[in-house]
Amino acid sequence: MNPFPESCPMPIPAGQRLLLAHGEGAGLTRRLLERLIWPRLSNPILDQHGDSALLPRSDQVPVISTDSFVVSPLFFPGGDIGSLAIHGTVNDLAMSGAEPKFLTLSLIAEEGLPIEILEAVLDSTAAAVKRCQVQVVAGDTKVVPRGAVDQLFINTTGLGYRPRSVDWGWHRIQPGDQILVSGTMGDHGLAILSAREQFQFDSPIQSDSAPLHELVQSLLVSDLDIHLLRDPTRGGVAAVLHEIVEATKLAIRIEEKQLPVQPEVRGACEILGLDPIYIANEGKLILVVSARDGDRALRCLHDHPLGHKAAMIGRVEEQAMPTVWVEGIMGASRVLDEPSGAPLPRIC
Amino acid sequence: MNPFPESCPMPIPAGQRLLLAHGEGAGLTRRLLERLIWPRLSNPILDQHGDSALLPRSDQVPVISTDSFVVSPLFFPGGDIGSLAIHGTVNDLAMSGAEPKFLTLSLIAEEGLPIEILEAVLDSTAAAVKRCQVQVVAGDTKVVPRGAVDQLFINTTGLGYRPRSVDWGWHRIQPGDQILVSGTMGDHGLAILSAREQFQFDSPIQSDSAPLHELVQSLLVSDLDIHLLRDPTRGGVAAVLHEIVEATKLAIRIEEKQLPVQPEVRGACEILGLDPIYIANEGKLILVVSARDGDRALRCLHDHPLGHKAAMIGRVEEQAMPTVWVEGIMGASRVLDEPSGAPLPRIC
Repeated sequence: MNPFPESCPMPIPAGQRLLLAHGEGAGLTRRLLERLIWPRLSNPILDQHGDSALLPRSDQVPVISTDSFVVSPLFFPGGDIGSLAIHGTVNDLAMSGAEPKFLTLSLIAEEGLPIEILEAVLDSTAAAVKRCQVQVVAGDTKVVPRGAVDQLFINTTGLGYRPRSVDWGWHRIQPGDQILVSGTMGDHGLAILSAREQFQFDSPIQSDSAPLHELVQSLLVSDLDIHLLRDPTRGGVAAVLHEIVEATKLAIRIEEKQLPVQPEVRGACEILGLDPIYIANEGKLILVVSARDGDRALRCLHDHPLGHKAAMIGRVEEQAMPTVWVEGIMGASRVLDEPSGAPLPRIC
Repeated sequence: MNPFPESCPMPIPAGQRLLLAHGEGAGLTRRLLERLIWPRLSNPILDQHGDSALLPRSDQVPVISTDSFVVSPLFFPGGDIGSLAIHGTVNDLAMSGAEPKFLTLSLIAEEGLPIEILEAVLDSTAAAVKRCQVQVVAGDTKVVPRGAVDQLFINTTGLGYRPRSVDWGWHRIQPGDQILVSGTMGDHGLAILSAREQFQFDSPIQSDSAPLHELVQSLLVSDLDIHLLRDPTRGGVAAVLHEIVEATKLAIRIEEKQLPVQPEVRGACEILGLDPIYIANEGKLILVVSARDGDRALRCLHDHPLGHKAAMIGRVEEQAMPTVWVEGIMGASRVLDEPSGAPLPRIC
C-alpha cells in the first residue's frame, strides 16, 4: 500500500481524508482526478477529459455489461474491490465471447475515507486494467456524507466486441451436452467470509478473483462446439445450473464426486454448514459443450493456468422433470435445491 | 405512486420490503427482476436476460458516459432519482453530439427499503426511458445491509452514436466565440435543497431535470458552427466556464445582466447566501458557437420548449489573464471565483 506512487505528480499529504467537496464537480474534484485517478488510468481516450468518451468504431458485435461492487471488507485475501470491479466486468463480457475493450469506472465514496485507502484501491484497479489490456475511458466520482455509504462502492460498465461467428446461448443447449467447471468452487465467497468474520483456519483461503478473457480466448481458438459460457458468481455453480434448467426446460445431472473443491474450502464449509456449490466464485467459468467435444474442452481448460483444476461435472438430459439432479457419491440421486435463502451479503 | 401497474404480472404484496436475499443472485433476485424490473423496461435486447447484452452494429462513432446518482431525497419537486438517472446520462451523451441509444441500469438498494418506493422509482425510470427513446439493455441489482447505503443509489452508463461529421470540443474554441445558456440557472440545486431542508418559499421551486437530446438535435440540424456543448450540473455554470478557461487558456467575459435566473430562485439564493451561477442544473446546456452564429443559435434555442428562456451570456476573449470575468450591472468587472467550497452534497 504505497500512497504516493511515482505516477502521481502532486501527492495529497498522508493522513488526508476525502471531503464532500472532492465530489462537488469543481476545484477539489478536479484535483482528485488530476492527482489520484487520471495518472493511474491514463490512455488517449480518457486523457480527453470529456463528459463522455468517443470510442473507435468496430465491425464486430458490441457487447455491454454492468456491475456494481459493494464487497466488504474492501481488501481480502487474494484481492480487493478495485481489482474485483475490473475482473468482474471483464468476465461478464468474456462469457459472451467478447473481447473486453473499454470500461467506465464510477466511484461512490464516504466522506472521511482515508485517501491512502482510495489510493490503494486505485493502484489495484490500475494494475488489473493493465493486466486485462482494457482502457478506462470515462468515469464519475461521488462523495456522500458520512453514514450514507459504507466506505466505497464501485460500478464498472464494460464494452467489448464479439466476433460475428460466435453463437452461444441458451438456444444452443441440447440433451447430451457436457458441463464443465474451470476449477474449484467457493473460493471467493469463503475468502470474503473468513476475512469479514476473522475466522482462523489452518491455511488461509484466497479469493479466486481473476480475469477469464484469455482462458475464453484459448477456448475460442480451439474451435470447440461451445453452447454456453457463464461465470458462477452470486449463487455459485448451483445458480448457473438452475438458470440453464429455467431457460431450456431440460434437466441437468451432476456427479458429486466430480465437483472440484479445495480441501480447506470443504473443511470450512463443513464447519459453517455451507455447500460450496452455492458459494460465489470470481475467477471460474461454467462451460457447456456438445457431447463430442467434452474431453477436448477439458484438455483445453487444463492447458491454461486458470483452468488446470477444471472438471467435467455433468451433462444435460431430456427428462420428465426438468431440474438439477445430483448423483451422490454412494450412487443415489437427489434434487439440488435452487439457491434462495442463506444470504452472504456484500460478497462482490 | 401506483405500486402495482398493469405491466407487472405478479405483484409483490403491499407493505413488503427489500430483503438481502433479493440481491443474492438466486431465486429472490430472479423474482425481483421478473416482477418489478423486466416488465417495466422490456425490449428485445434486455429480454435476452443475459449476463451482458449484444448490441446492433453501427457505422457511426460510439460514445460512452457513466454517472452514479446519490440524490437525497429520492423524490423532489420536478423529479426523482429514477428519471434523473436517465436524463443525466442521456444529457452527457447529447453534449457530445451523440444520439443516446442504450443504457445500463445498476441499483444499489438498502435492505428494508419499501418495495413501493422501489416501484415508484422504477415507474419513473421507465417513463423517462420511453420519453428519451432509449433502451435499457443490461443491469445489476445489489441489496446491502441496513446502514451500508442510504436508501437507493443508481448508476447509469450510456452508449450513443455520433455522426462522423460532428467535431466539437475544447480545440474548436477561439476568441470571439459567443457563449449561450439554454435557460434559467440553479433550479435543480435549489429544488433539492428546499425539499431536503423543507424550506417554505412562496412558490415551490421545481427541478429542471429534463432530457436535452432533442434540443441538441435541433441545434445539429440548424447547421450552426458549434464549438462546444456542456451541461452545467455540479458546480453550475461557473464550473463549465472555468473548465473552458482551464482547457483553452483563453478568457471569458460574462455580462451579469444577461444571466437568466427565475425570480423565486434568485430570492431563495439571496436568503441563503448562494449565487445561482454555482448551483447545479439538470436540464440546461451551455453552448459555445462562432461569433457569426450567436444570434442564430439564440433563435434556435428559443424555438424549443426547453430553450425558450435561453440567453447569450458572454464571449471568449484573448487576454493576458485567462480567467472568467463578470461585467457587473453597474459596469465594473470582477473575477468569478472557481467553485470549490460550499458543498451541496447529494444534489444528483
